[in-house]
Amino acid sequence: MAKTSPGNFFEDFRIGQVIRHATPRTVTAGDVAVYNSLFGPRFAVQSSDEFAKAIGYPRAPIDDLLVFHIVFGKTVPDISLNAVANLGYAGCYFRAPVYPGDTLSALSEVIGLKENSSRKTGIVYVRTTGSNQNGTSVLEYVRWVMVRKRDEAAPAPGDHVPRLPTVLDPKVLSEACPPIDLSAYDLALAGSPYRFGDYEVGERVDHLDGITVEEAEHMTATRLYQNTARIHFNQYIEGKGRFGRRLIYGGHVISLARAVSFNGFANAFHVAAINGGRHVAPLFAGGTVFAWSEVLAKSELPGRDDVGALRLRTIATRDRPCEDFPFKSGDEYDPAILLDLDYWVLMPR
Amino acid sequence: MAKTSPGNFFEDFRIGQVIRHATPRTVTAGDVAVYNSLFGPRFAVQSSDEFAKAIGYPRAPIDDLLVFHIVFGKTVPDISLNAVANLGYAGCYFRAPVYPGDTLSALSEVIGLKENSSRKTGIVYVRTTGSNQNGTSVLEYVRWVMVRKRDEAAPAPGDHVPRLPTVLDPKVLSEACPPIDLSAYDLALAGSPYRFGDYEVGERVDHLDGITVEEAEHMTATRLYQNTARIHFNQYIEGKGRFGRRLIYGGHVISLARAVSFNGFANAFHVAAINGGRHVAPLFAGGTVFAWSEVLAKSELPGRDDVGALRLRTIATRDRPCEDFPFKSGDEYDPAILLDLDYWVLMPR
Amino acid sequence: MAKTSPGNFFEDFRIGQVIRHATPRTVTAGDVAVYNSLFGPRFAVQSSDEFAKAIGYPRAPIDDLLVFHIVFGKTVPDISLNAVANLGYAGCYFRAPVYPGDTLSALSEVIGLKENSSRKTGIVYVRTTGSNQNGTSVLEYVRWVMVRKRDEAAPAPGDHVPRLPTVLDPKVLSEACPPIDLSAYDLALAGSPYRFGDYEVGERVDHLDGITVEEAEHMTATRLYQNTARIHFNQYIEGKGRFGRRLIYGGHVISLARAVSFNGFANAFHVAAINGGRHVAPLFAGGTVFAWSEVLAKSELPGRDDVGALRLRTIATRDRPCEDFPFKSGDEYDPAILLDLDYWVLMPR
Repeated sequence: MAKTSPGNFFEDFRIGQVIRHATPRTVTAGDVAVYNSLFGPRFAVQSSDEFAKAIGYPRAPIDDLLVFHIVFGKTVPDISLNAVANLGYAGCYFRAPVYPGDTLSALSEVIGLKENSSRKTGIVYVRTTGSNQNGTSVLEYVRWVMVRKRDEAAPAPGDHVPRLPTVLDPKVLSEACPPIDLSAYDLALAGSPYRFGDYEVGERVDHLDGITVEEAEHMTATRLYQNTARIHFNQYIEGKGRFGRRLIYGGHVISLARAVSFNGFANAFHVAAINGGRHVAPLFAGGTVFAWSEVLAKSELPGRDDVGALRLRTIATRDRPCEDFPFKSGDEYDPAILLDLDYWVLMPR
Repeated sequence: MAKTSPGNFFEDFRIGQVIRHATPRTVTAGDVAVYNSLFGPRFAVQSSDEFAKAIGYPRAPIDDLLVFHIVFGKTVPDISLNAVANLGYAGCYFRAPVYPGDTLSALSEVIGLKENSSRKTGIVYVRTTGSNQNGTSVLEYVRWVMVRKRDEAAPAPGDHVPRLPTVLDPKVLSEACPPIDLSAYDLALAGSPYRFGDYEVGERVDHLDGITVEEAEHMTATRLYQNTARIHFNQYIEGKGRFGRRLIYGGHVISLARAVSFNGFANAFHVAAINGGRHVAPLFAGGTVFAWSEVLAKSELPGRDDVGALRLRTIATRDRPCEDFPFKSGDEYDPAILLDLDYWVLMPR
Repeated sequence: MAKTSPGNFFEDFRIGQVIRHATPRTVTAGDVAVYNSLFGPRFAVQSSDEFAKAIGYPRAPIDDLLVFHIVFGKTVPDISLNAVANLGYAGCYFRAPVYPGDTLSALSEVIGLKENSSRKTGIVYVRTTGSNQNGTSVLEYVRWVMVRKRDEAAPAPGDHVPRLPTVLDPKVLSEACPPIDLSAYDLALAGSPYRFGDYEVGERVDHLDGITVEEAEHMTATRLYQNTARIHFNQYIEGKGRFGRRLIYGGHVISLARAVSFNGFANAFHVAAINGGRHVAPLFAGGTVFAWSEVLAKSELPGRDDVGALRLRTIATRDRPCEDFPFKSGDEYDPAILLDLDYWVLMPR
C-alpha cells in the first residue's frame, strides 16, 4: 500500500499506452528570469517585448529550450525514473509559441519497446506532446531510454522498434513562428548583421565563450523544470555511485551551448526543431563548457519568404576551447566532447 | 547616535508590546519562480493557474511556506537578531490565500517573557500576524526565542509564560482554502490517486528523494525572504564561531521536506497549519536532506465535505535515507535527524 | 568571414562614434526577484507596490542598481570585451524611474580616446545612455576603460581626454524621483526613524553585516544582466590567468554594499547619482564583503521640499569588519578595501 511512486519499470509499459503526466505548469516571467540568470541568453526576440512585437509576435515568447525542459521534466517520474541511460531524441519540433501565463502539460504515448538481450533492461520509445491550456500542441518529440526491469523473469511487454525520422521536414519548421516583419527586424539591436543568406553549408563557427558550471546552478535549473531525476540532486547517493558525483542534466549542456551560440548566430532567433542529439559524455560541476557549430544544411520554408532555416550541428566540449573544431577521429568522438546536437534554427532572410 | 540597529535585547521587550516590522513586500510570480527553482515543489494547485482555477481558486496561490518564510523574515531584525536559539513554534495557521501581487507585512505582539536562571538570557514569546494589503490576516503564529541581555544586571522586563496550543483546532484549518470543486480535481494531473480517505492514522511514508544543499542555494533562499539573520551569510565571522560554518536557516529544511513529501502526499495541496516544530540539529552546506512522514491524525472539517485534514509528522534527516523511518530511541532523536515537524495538510475527499 | 564578434580594439573607436548596443531587454518582476534573492535589499519603496503607491510612485520601481547593471551589461560586447581594466565612472545619474514591463536599450558615444605611451593600449571614454521603450533616457553615465590594440603599429584613432564632472550637480538628482507624499511615508515600515535632517556631514556608519559570495551567485547575477565579460565565467581560462580564478564583476560589490547600507540608511530609498567609483581590489568567491559609509555632503534639491540628497562615500572591504572605518593610510588604501564609491542618495525630509 505504499503511496510513493517507484516509477515504471520496463515490464510496466505497453505499446499504445498513453500517460498523462503530472504536474501542469503555468510558465511566468519569473521562470524566464531564473532561466536567463542561469544561462545568459541574448536573443532579442525572447529578451524584449518591444522587439518581439515590432516583428510580429504579440510579446516576447518563452525560450524554446525552456519549453522543452519543462515538458521533458514532467515525463521523468513516469518514463525515466528507473532509466539506466537516456539514449536519444528524434522528431522534436515546436508547434506553437509559448508566452508567459500559458500553462503547459505533457502526455506521452509508448510507441516502441525492445528488451535487451541481457533481459535485465529494455528500451522504451515514447512520443511526448507538450500542450498549452487550450489543448494546442506546442512541442512534440520522441525519446528512447533504457529502463530497468523490476523482475528479470517478467516477459517482455512488447517488441517493436519504431521508424523515426533522422531530420525534420522543413515544412513543419515554421509552425511556431508567426509571420515576421523583416522591415522591423533591427539587426543592430539583435546583435549581428548576418541573415539567412549570409551563411553557407559547411561553414563552421567557434562560439569562443566558455562557461563554468557550479552544483548550485545545475540543480537550480533542473528544479526550475520540476525534473526529479535523482542523479542530479543527491550527493549522498551519487557519492557512492558510478561517478562519485552528481550528474548534470544533459539539457543543461544544450542550454549553455545555445546561449554561447549567440556569438555567431545572433539572428537565429528560434530553435524550430531538434533532429537528434547525443550526450556523448557526462558533465560534472566545475567543468567549463565550450561549443562550436557547423551549418549542415539550409532550407527555404514552404510559403515563407520572411525566414529560412539553418540545420546546425553544435558540438559542446568540456574544458577544451573549440578554435580547431574538435569532432571525431574515425568513429570516436574527441574525449572532450559532451554533446553532439543536430537541430534547425530560423533566421530572417 | 548610531543609525544602525543592533536589534532588541531581552530587557528591551515588554509584555503587550506591539512591533510593526519593516519591510513590506509585494510577492510576485518572480518570487515564486525563485522559490520553485530552489526547492522544486510539484503540487499542482500552486504550479498551475489552470488547475487552481478549475477547482475554485481565482488563480494559483503562493506556496504556504513561502508566505511563512517572508513573514518570518520580517520579524528577524526586531525579534531575533540577538537570539541564541530559536526554541519553538505554536499555533501557526494560514488564514487567507496569498496571490502574486499581494503585499505582505508583519506585526508582532510580545505575549511572554521569562528570564533564564543565568540572568544572561531570557525567553521572548511573540505572536506574529502576517497581513495583506487589505489588512486581512493571512498567517498567525507564536514563536519563542532565547535572546541575550545587553546588560546582565538589568532587571527582567516581565515574567509570564503563555499557554500555547499543542495542536490547532480543525475548525480553523480551512480558513485559507476556498470551496474545492472535487469534480474538477484531476488526480492524474495532480500526480497521485490517493485522497483523504486513502490514508490511515499511523501510516508511514518514506519520501525517497534526497536533496543536497549548496551554500549559494540556502543564502539565495534566505535573502529571497529578506531574512537578515547573520549566521546564514557571513563565513568570515561564522568560520571563527561555534560551528566553523554558516548555519542554514531552519526553514530551508522545512521547505525541502515539504517538496520531497510530494512523493506520498501529492494531493496534500495546502499546508493549513503548523502545530509545532523542532529543529533538532543544524544543517550545513553539503548535507543531503531526506524525509519521511507519519499520519498522526485525520480530521473532517466543520462545514466542509470537499476537503479533509491530515495531521502529519515529517522527520527530515541529514545524509541518511529514511526507509526504516528513523526517529527516537527513548527520548533521544536519531543523530541524523534535523527536523521534527507536526502540521496539518488538506486533501480532497 | 568569421561571424563571431571579437569585440572592438582601441584603433576601432573614433571620437563621436555612436554605438547602438544589442540586446534590448524587458525588465520584469522576475528579474527583480532574482536580483533580490542575490543581494537581499530591503528598501521599502522597491519592495512594496503599496508603499510606493502611497508616497507617489505608480508602483514599486526597479532597483536603481539593477537598471545600472542591465544597461552596463549591454555595452560590454562593444566597449570592453578587449579591456585590460575598467578605470572609472563619472557623471552617472538616473533620469526616470523604470518599472516592470519597461524595455531597456543602450547607446554609447565615444567622447574621448588617449593612446598609452606603450602604444599597446589606449583609453576609451564613452557616454552611455540607457533608454526605455518610449525613448526616454533613464540613465546616463561616462566610463573609461583601457582597451588593447589589435595591432600595435596602428595609428592612434584620436587624442582627446574629455573634462568630466567629479560630482553631480544637485539640480539633476531628483529627475527620477516623483513628488513624495511625506505624510504617507511610514518610517516604521521603512525600517528607520532617521530622515534627511537627522544626518550630519562627516557622520560615519558601520553597516555591520557581512555577506560571503559564492561562484554560483556572482555568475548568476552577471548573467541576469546579460553581461558577457569572459573573466567572470570561465574557470578553465582564468585558472591559467593572472589571478587563477574567476574575477567577480565589480558591480556585484556595489550591490552588496548598497544592500547592507540599509542598516544605517534605511530611508535612502533612491540612488540618484554615482559621482565616481573605484574598484580598489578584485573580489573572488569565498570572500565576505563588509561596508561602511560616510556622509560627504548634504544638499537640498531645487524646487523640492519633500526629499533631500546625501552624498555618501561607501567603502566595501573583503574579510574585514568595518567598526573602525578602514580607509587610507596616506595615499594607500587599506589592503582589505574593494570599493570606494561616491554617490548621492535621496531621503525624505
